Amino acid sequence: MKAFIKKLRRHLVSEEVKNEELQEEAVETAEEVVEETTEVPEKSELELANERAEDFENKYLRAHAEMQNIQRRANEERQQLQRYRSQDLAKKILPSLDNLERALAVEGLTDDVKKGLEMTRDSLIQALKEEGVEEVALETFDHNLHMAVQTLPADDEHPADTIAEVFQKGYKLHERLLRPAMVVVYN
Amino acid sequence: MKAFIKKLRRHLVSEEVKNEELQEEAVETAEEVVEETTEVPEKSELELANERAEDFENKYLRAHAEMQNIQRRANEERQQLQRYRSQDLAKKILPSLDNLERALAVEGLTDDVKKGLEMTRDSLIQALKEEGVEEVALETFDHNLHMAVQTLPADDEHPADTIAEVFQKGYKLHERLLRPAMVVVYN
Repeated sequence: MKAFIKKLRRHLVSEEVKNEELQEEAVETAEEVVEETTEVPEKSELELANERAEDFENKYLRAHAEMQNIQRRANEERQQLQRYRSQDLAKKILPSLDNLERALAVEGLTDDVKKGLEMTRDSLIQALKEEGVEEVALETFDHNLHMAVQTLPADDEHPADTIAEVFQKGYKLHERLLRPAMVVVYN
Repeated sequence: MKAFIKKLRRHLVSEEVKNEELQEEAVETAEEVVEETTEVPEKSELELANERAEDFENKYLRAHAEMQNIQRRANEERQQLQRYRSQDLAKKILPSLDNLERALAVEGLTDDVKKGLEMTRDSLIQALKEEGVEEVALETFDHNLHMAVQTLPADDEHPADTIAEVFQKGYKLHERLLRPAMVVVYN
């Protein structure tokens, strides 16, 4: 650790030279010292020590503030990663759910098969729901959630933006859209 | 920012008092200064300035090293979160996969239904595979991967640790076990 500190110190001293901001501050400090002291020989040594102290204090305060920033950012990032961790797998599972729903729509299934398919579909939906995945609402057309694959002319019974048919369900993970619903809309 | 720095400075000065290690180093510095200088009145002021410089340099170096540690740990944590992000959803999906395989084992499925079920199962397995989920190997019994739900007496044809039957497949995410395989084993 001692050797590391020494190495780091050398590295930082070389960086110091490049730091214009700190040099400016050092000049300010030097000017203050000039005003305060009168004796010439001791002034310069004391001046240097004060300069050095000021420099390192500022560096330390900056490093401390930066450390807190890094920690805060890391926490935020971790929370985001946790919140959307299931995004990729959920997206890839949606076609399986589509297939199951299509299979359930086939005529002439035996009760056993139908029950098995329903159980599978429900457990899939439940698993997705527990991770924050849900179907998008289908009340009225919303271009943020729906994709119009076809339009029909609106009339008195079917005002504009009424959804006529759903070709494929849409899903979102929390407030993030995984895929839009494919719909036919009156327009 | 100026006000923040001042506040932080006050806070840090109060912390300083508690730091024994720094105090020890400050004493060392003070002793060095005593050896180097001869005049008494200026010595004490210079001594204090040097002490202060040394203190803040050490604090700065420590803060800098700690900052790098925090960043390194945050990176490692992020990588782990990414690697195992699908763990919870994958675990919850496994029963659906079991249900599908049970449904496929039912006698008298029509070709259409069978094809639909196979497609669904395969797309589910593919989605899991892309996220790093795979079946555990079943060559010989391994208590790290398998759970023996029943044993059969081993003989010449079936040496100990041979797996006789698999009740339920096991799965792992990368090298992490999601659930063990339920097996009958010769013993």
